[in-house]
Amino acid sequence: MNVLIVHAHPEPQSFTAALRDQAVDTFTAQGHQVQVSDLYAMNWNPVASANDFVSRENPDYLVYALEQRLGVKSQSIAADIQQELDKLLWADLVVLNFPIFWFSAPAMLKGWIDRVLVSGVCYGGKRFYDQGGLAGKRALVSVTLGGREHMFGEGAIHGPLEDMLRPILRGTLAYVGFEVLEPFVAWHVPYISDEARKDFLRSYQQRLTHLSDDQPLVFPRLAQFDEQLYPLA
Amino acid sequence: MNVLIVHAHPEPQSFTAALRDQAVDTFTAQGHQVQVSDLYAMNWNPVASANDFVSRENPDYLVYALEQRLGVKSQSIAADIQQELDKLLWADLVVLNFPIFWFSAPAMLKGWIDRVLVSGVCYGGKRFYDQGGLAGKRALVSVTLGGREHMFGEGAIHGPLEDMLRPILRGTLAYVGFEVLEPFVAWHVPYISDEARKDFLRSYQQRLTHLSDDQPLVFPRLAQFDEQLYPLA
Repeated sequence: MNVLIVHAHPEPQSFTAALRDQAVDTFTAQGHQVQVSDLYAMNWNPVASANDFVSRENPDYLVYALEQRLGVKSQSIAADIQQELDKLLWADLVVLNFPIFWFSAPAMLKGWIDRVLVSGVCYGGKRFYDQGGLAGKRALVSVTLGGREHMFGEGAIHGPLEDMLRPILRGTLAYVGFEVLEPFVAWHVPYISDEARKDFLRSYQQRLTHLSDDQPLVFPRLAQFDEQLYPLA
Repeated sequence: MNVLIVHAHPEPQSFTAALRDQAVDTFTAQGHQVQVSDLYAMNWNPVASANDFVSRENPDYLVYALEQRLGVKSQSIAADIQQELDKLLWADLVVLNFPIFWFSAPAMLKGWIDRVLVSGVCYGGKRFYDQGGLAGKRALVSVTLGGREHMFGEGAIHGPLEDMLRPILRGTLAYVGFEVLEPFVAWHVPYISDEARKDFLRSYQQRLTHLSDDQPLVFPRLAQFDEQLYPLA
């Protein structure tokens, strides 16, 4: 199996980085191929802009997704995007590894999503959800956060974490066709003991070792909707 | 009333920019003070990093929120952040004006949220939701998107748009204390006629003119939870 880990944390020694390393070690020990995109270390540019295209279909007015579609076809998309896209297409499993900032991904990672999940390859027209361009691949979101576990869930102060992560789990990963696994969550990370951190690393290792047993989350399938995307009765 | 419009779109002539201008005109005509942060025009840096602090409490290990809390107190936070924070504190109403990228904000705007909503001022300890540091201010999210209106809502292919926007509406704006108004949404924008666009601009103007009549969305209040943030029976 080919595994791409996309990691984004501003502190190189963070616990989130320890999760990344745990994943690299675990997958490698299983004989998988692993690539890591460490976005802060790469000084990744997260800003989608006109600069992402060597040449433009319409130099006077930028429609980003349209230029992506044409740019990827004519190989005139920026080199840093093309490199990440190549890794993405190579991967059977993509792990997004990040600290929760404002109940979502840091801008650094959001900008990887904005720029790398190009229209025409990852989605386009009726190619989304189960028909998405990356169908057949799996995705895992691994996050750290400051909150405690009891602050999340039905009736809890912040509601279910999966609801907060909906734009990523459903609106991004499921949208482009990934089978999306249940997120791995390390709670209350800035405040816990070293022993508690080691427990999280051990349970992450366990989880990753048996990842092939995981049932993906359930999302809409296009067959449930008509040609105009109204729900079928 | 003081109004801050935070605008993020990679195309200066976009319809999203027309919404921004409509808001400036409408609020100004009503006698309000308006400031605009046009993030692409400002070449805003969206990446939260160690560079955001002139001096560090802990130069060896970055805990971003902790350095924010200390940096804002000792006025050692980066100048670009301090400028935006000053605008935010000046504003009675904040408008986030952006195109939906992946069912959420473009990285450019996410990085404004990551960097400007500093711990110790906007939130911290038990100061969140109705007790948030920005309580008393109102926020409006104004978005453009490619999808059609019937693709959103209960039972629709993407579910309710408010559910997709939960990390922004609840996890960010409500979290720091804003009264959050119902989003203004311009649907299917890349594909509609000029007349349909003008209709959206007119209905936006109407909405903004009568904004004081709006009832904010309902979110958790800390009084519904105990000291450990478990829900009260």
